[in-house]
Order: sequence, then structure tokens, then C-alpha cells
Amino acid sequence: VSPRTGRRAGESGTKEAILDAARRRFAAVGYERSTMRAIAAKAGVDPALVHHFYGTKEQLFVAASGFPTIPSEVIKQVMTVGRSELGGTMARTLMDIWDTPSAQTQIAGLLRTALTHDSAMDMLRGFITSTIWDTLSEALGTDDAPYRASLVASQLVGLIMARYIVKVPPLADAPAEDVIAAVGSTLQRYLTGPLSRA
Amino acid sequence: VSPRTGRRAGESGTKEAILDAARRRFAAVGYERSTMRAIAAKAGVDPALVHHFYGTKEQLFVAASGFPTIPSEVIKQVMTVGRSELGGTMARTLMDIWDTPSAQTQIAGLLRTALTHDSAMDMLRGFITSTIWDTLSEALGTDDAPYRASLVASQLVGLIMARYIVKVPPLADAPAEDVIAAVGSTLQRYLTGPLSRA
Repeated sequence: VSPRTGRRAGESGTKEAILDAARRRFAAVGYERSTMRAIAAKAGVDPALVHHFYGTKEQLFVAASGFPTIPSEVIKQVMTVGRSELGGTMARTLMDIWDTPSAQTQIAGLLRTALTHDSAMDMLRGFITSTIWDTLSEALGTDDAPYRASLVASQLVGLIMARYIVKVPPLADAPAEDVIAAVGSTLQRYLTGPLSRA
Repeated sequence: VSPRTGRRAGESGTKEAILDAARRRFAAVGYERSTMRAIAAKAGVDPALVHHFYGTKEQLFVAASGFPTIPSEVIKQVMTVGRSELGGTMARTLMDIWDTPSAQTQIAGLLRTALTHDSAMDMLRGFITSTIWDTLSEALGTDDAPYRASLVASQLVGLIMARYIVKVPPLADAPAEDVIAAVGSTLQRYLTGPLSRA
């Protein structure tokens, strides 16, 4: 970090300083062990100001990293439907977000950084575990919920890779409704169906 | 390319020259448009020698890129079982390969390169399309086989990412048999089951 001459002016300078501090802190100690208090201290501001500008730690991470959704909000939204509709609703909700060029640029950037920097990968894993897993496990309320959530993640990450990053035909160009139907059934089984050995 | 003084000696020098030429050619014009003849010319050897050392273009690509399997061989092997066992057999065959540290290192390297170099991504997509898609489509023998194959790819790429690269718990540490059962059912439906909209 190069020394700065003078202070950054006003609110936008303060917000940028908080994002800088957050990125450094998340990268240094991971998502779970980063605290809003430590990030505030690093940015030289009161913790209340960090909450004021960015809300929760999860929301701050999303702002600092370019993660394309606030996972716990998506999951809470999905979980309002009946159990038998969870898979399709999750697929539809995420496809609505991902089928935009800006989300795809963000996702590609995140994956590129994570695959080339171990600390970024650790950070991403910690974030996913702390937000998606915990919210989803709580909502499912079963002992095997974390395992089910990780199976869901495998299909969703694969869909991102195949449709948006590697762009494998014909999945890359398939109508969203077809993909929602095909992948939604998989998510439904991973969430609530039988997983046991044959 | 820097000019070389003298020739590389013997068989290992020739083999390395062929791999160098193959990597440059695949990266320059993609997998589909690369020919064994052009690669041989670039390496300054007879095409018969390229076939002698490396077999098919697919096998040469695997040798040059570090791709962890010869896709058409895996698919042919999988396709010897009955239709109702395709998904589980595919999951088992691939997990046997992937559950080794050397394969994981290769896969991580390939993905890292593909995500950071557009030409490498194009090359990888071309290879997957030309080998996996074509072999699988032929074996399935249905009009929607390429779409089914790309759905299979989405789950398999996601399994690689979640279990071996991002290492999301508890999937990363789950017994292979459990993962084979859970993912095998998904592959089975993508290959032979209903995909239509609800």
C-alpha cells in the first residue's frame, strides 16, 4: 500500500476506503474471521458508519467482491414457496439474475481470481459456507442439509460454468424456461428427494 | 518463437517438438481446425510420426494439454452398460479418475488457463464439443442428445469445481459412493429421462 498524501474527501472517499479495507481484511483472514469492527478500524472510521453504508457483513462482502447476489436474501425469497416447488423456484430466481451480461462479467471475474489466488478461493469458500449453507440448512431443517446444499452448489456452479463461462452449446443458447425445468428437477431432488445409495 | 541453434536430439526431442507444435496450433486455430498434418509440418516431421507417437488428434490434445482423460474412450467404456445404468456408471468411472491428486492438479491448471486466456477457453470448448458431444450424441442416438450432453457437462463441471477446486464442505469430503449415487441419478435423468417443462 503506497502512502497517501492528504485525505479522501467526503462520503464517496469514505465508502471507497471502507471497501478497500474490507477487501484487504477478507483476503487476509477470510470471510468468517473478518469483523465489521476490524474493517472499520482499518478504514479509520466508526463501525456504525460501516453498518450505515453497507448493512451486514454479507452485504459488505457483496459490495467489495462483486459477488452477483446477496445469497441469504435469494434463499429467503426462494424458501417462501412450498417444499415441492423449491428446486424450480431456485433455478428461476437465479437464472433471472444470471441471464444478464453484468452478472456474467462479475461471476467470471470472481472465478478467475479465485482460481489464480488461493486466498481468494479461501475467501469465496468461507463466504459461500457462511451465507448459503447456513441459511439453506436452517431453512431445510434436516441433519443432512449441509450435504444437500453442497450438491445444490455443485449443479449451480456447473450451470454457471457451462452456460455462461465455457458457453457449451446448446446449453449456452437454450431457452431459460427449458434450463429451469431441467435443472430445477435436479435441485428439487438434491433439496428434498432421496439421495441414498442405490 | 526464438530461433534455435542446432537440432533437438533423438526421440524425446522429436516428441517434445510435436507437443510444442500441437499446443501452438491448438491455441492458434482451435481444436476443430487443427490438423495432424499442419501440426506435423510445424514440428518439421512426417505426419506418420505424429500418429506413431500420439495416435489420434484427440489423444495428441490430451498429451499436449494435460486433459485428465481421453473423453471418447471413457464414453465408449460407459456406453457398454445398459441404458438404465448409464448415469451411475458415468459417475463412477469419472470419480475413479478424478479422485486422484494428479487429476485434480491437471484439472485446476486447465480451468485456470481457460478462465484467464480466451484462446484456451475456445480450445477447451472446441475439444469438449468435438469429442464428448459427438461420441455421446452418437451413442444416445436422439435428436436432443447434444442438449442432454451439455446438461451432463454442467453437472460434471460443477462436481469438479465443488468437490476438487473450491472444495466446498461436506461434498469435498463425502464418500465417493454417496456422491456417485446422488450425482449418478442426475446424470441418468439428463441422459435418458424427461427434461420437458413442468
